Amino acid sequence: MSKIVNIGLIGFGTIGAGVIKVLTKKAALLEKKIGVRLLLKKICDLDISRRRDVSVDKNILTKDASWILNDENINIVVELIGGIHPAKEIILRALRSKKHVVTANKALLAEEGEEIFKTAAENGVDVCFEASVGGGIPIIKALREGFVANRIESIYGIINGTSNYILTQMSDKGCDFKSALFAARQKGYAEKNPTLDIDGIDSAHKIAILARMCFNQPICFKDVYVEGIRDIDGSDLQYADELGFAVKLLAVTKCGGPDLQIRVHPALVPKSHLLAHVDGVLNAIFVNADLVGEALFYGQGAGQLPTASAVVSDLVALAGKITTQDHNVCLGIGQDKRHCVIRAIDDIESRYYLRLSALDKPAVLSQISTILGKYGISIHSVIQKGRRRAEAVPIVMMTHEAKGKKLRQALAKIDKLAVVKKKTVAIRVERL
Amino acid sequence: MSKIVNIGLIGFGTIGAGVIKVLTKKAALLEKKIGVRLLLKKICDLDISRRRDVSVDKNILTKDASWILNDENINIVVELIGGIHPAKEIILRALRSKKHVVTANKALLAEEGEEIFKTAAENGVDVCFEASVGGGIPIIKALREGFVANRIESIYGIINGTSNYILTQMSDKGCDFKSALFAARQKGYAEKNPTLDIDGIDSAHKIAILARMCFNQPICFKDVYVEGIRDIDGSDLQYADELGFAVKLLAVTKCGGPDLQIRVHPALVPKSHLLAHVDGVLNAIFVNADLVGEALFYGQGAGQLPTASAVVSDLVALAGKITTQDHNVCLGIGQDKRHCVIRAIDDIESRYYLRLSALDKPAVLSQISTILGKYGISIHSVIQKGRRRAEAVPIVMMTHEAKGKKLRQALAKIDKLAVVKKKTVAIRVERL
Repeated sequence: MSKIVNIGLIGFGTIGAGVIKVLTKKAALLEKKIGVRLLLKKICDLDISRRRDVSVDKNILTKDASWILNDENINIVVELIGGIHPAKEIILRALRSKKHVVTANKALLAEEGEEIFKTAAENGVDVCFEASVGGGIPIIKALREGFVANRIESIYGIINGTSNYILTQMSDKGCDFKSALFAARQKGYAEKNPTLDIDGIDSAHKIAILARMCFNQPICFKDVYVEGIRDIDGSDLQYADELGFAVKLLAVTKCGGPDLQIRVHPALVPKSHLLAHVDGVLNAIFVNADLVGEALFYGQGAGQLPTASAVVSDLVALAGKITTQDHNVCLGIGQDKRHCVIRAIDDIESRYYLRLSALDKPAVLSQISTILGKYGISIHSVIQKGRRRAEAVPIVMMTHEAKGKKLRQALAKIDKLAVVKKKTVAIRVERL
Repeated sequence: MSKIVNIGLIGFGTIGAGVIKVLTKKAALLEKKIGVRLLLKKICDLDISRRRDVSVDKNILTKDASWILNDENINIVVELIGGIHPAKEIILRALRSKKHVVTANKALLAEEGEEIFKTAAENGVDVCFEASVGGGIPIIKALREGFVANRIESIYGIINGTSNYILTQMSDKGCDFKSALFAARQKGYAEKNPTLDIDGIDSAHKIAILARMCFNQPICFKDVYVEGIRDIDGSDLQYADELGFAVKLLAVTKCGGPDLQIRVHPALVPKSHLLAHVDGVLNAIFVNADLVGEALFYGQGAGQLPTASAVVSDLVALAGKITTQDHNVCLGIGQDKRHCVIRAIDDIESRYYLRLSALDKPAVLSQISTILGKYGISIHSVIQKGRRRAEAVPIVMMTHEAKGKKLRQALAKIDKLAVVKKKTVAIRVERL
């Protein structure tokens, strides 16, 4: 007879229902594979009467998390309620009761990860979070275990499906941001309040989790520079395309020596790079590491079953630990601790794509380039789009490498010129 | 004090030297991460005097594998000699001595895997083979552990760097097969005898390993239909490009119901698919699975350090097992055993790209299409390239779905027509 691992699930929403489906349908297969029975013993949710697309025994349903947290036979608590409170309190209680935790809660790990991982280590249990980044992409396992001998140097992620869907729509259909957002809502890819996605916050949560794990630094959400995609215009995608680039919302983190970068912003990605071809709601994470060189992981970043698949893979890994009394140090903790300083976005150099709206007059370009020159920014190429004397026309410029601060200062001056009619759009060109 | 796991390395070539480098340079980091010391106790090679790019204590070098295989303190044998003999005998002896085995030997696993995995299971030890497929890509771990709850439905791999480099060169530089092969040799990407790579054999070894693992079937190398890239002409890459496709050497395996496909051949891949953008020596594996949907894993398929990274990740996983007395059933064994029949290549349907060399005469197209029609093959589009009355010109055709056998029979007839001057080139168009 197989050993049994008892699971308590807290949060019976879409992902919770997915986990139940997978554990039910695949129970026999998983038991055969791992020699352990994963038993869903109790389920907690504030709403236990609503019908879901999966049926469960009513006797295991509760509104009271304590019924799970106080149950000594429960080995693993799966937290799928999301948000900071009461998820944090529930997870801390579970860890202090020596229960392992599996969570998909990226906001919580990004904002309060320090306390959570510390509590787990103090209590000799694990917090597993494969489902928190990249849904169906086994990126946490790949980085922690597959690349266990590697020093991770940089990560570039397209890790928000909603934003990537919107940018892809704008690029493919030539539509504007609002119509693309509307299409995303119609498809169920965007929430009523899409701020978390389109303003880059969700991507920032995820890149903070990856950076903490890979660089073993106490990085949290507030350390991430964040810029969303609201200001991207359809024309930017078109001009970028003509120049050989796709525009993507990139989450970037790099660590070289004491210098650590962590930022989320739209970026021009050269079409020669695979990331430029990651379209629609799909996610991808591009990694540079000292031994393996470059690697990319691509797949569904969200959705009921991909996320449930990640949760169950964590359950399987923990089941192995529990049944063998494995008290190994958690991978990813105890790494090569580096003393890093997060570099301010102002100090990061980048090439830039600039789109200016300026009057079509002979002296305009000289005025603009004089200001850029004063701030040490040199121009790689200029294209003026259309000719309409005495009216504002778009001027697209690609600069050479310039520090964020210099560019910001130069643009402040440029945008005050009488011939410049709108705020200049600046998008970083990412060197991958 | 950390526990110690003793390792015996057999095969001190390029990869072996890489493993020694990684174990030496990263010893402290790995020990901190996993709480176990990976100790390289003995190294065996036929040549122990040659200088390598890594220095080792001469006292641990031997020419006699028995010095390792008979050492009761050695927990893991790393086999990196390659080829079938004596690698097979060494691995079997190691397993029977209850030693775990880590190997990068794809030919051996593809040809003799059945006996090796059976022997491992009988002796309660593991054979780990992350390094055998996709070098630095943690594909084995992703499929076995990350996708543990998934039913794998299909795998499409670009898993031979040499072939992919040659096809990329031909496409980018417009050169022919021979010049591209020459360039690959210059770069060190092709062996003196490149047969294993360009004739698809290496890809067939790897896809056989993946199919056995994912579908739990006794698949071996001889079950794989194999076609290489020698007959691909520069013009095929150009015409495919014009039609919106890249030509790739694909390794494909699918399992649906009792029907199993396993094949390696050049294929047209639509540019809208990420696999079409995997260039140079890089490898990628595209997977469809029931829960996660589509996923892609990309990275270095070979090389000293990427491969050593994979070997060491296996050592780390085994170290965990050894120090915790984990006798879990090996993941991937004990899967949902399906009763599958491998479908003959003749019975597999596909769209085809055809390039005919035919005289530029009015009746030619009707003669060709009449024969195709007799075999039930309908034409999707035809482009005649150039006009040279009374000389052979290329005619490029795209067909609708047709069975391999029908196409083969039709082409045999077509190639006998007086107006057809060369053997017709047929490349499958893969529906991904």
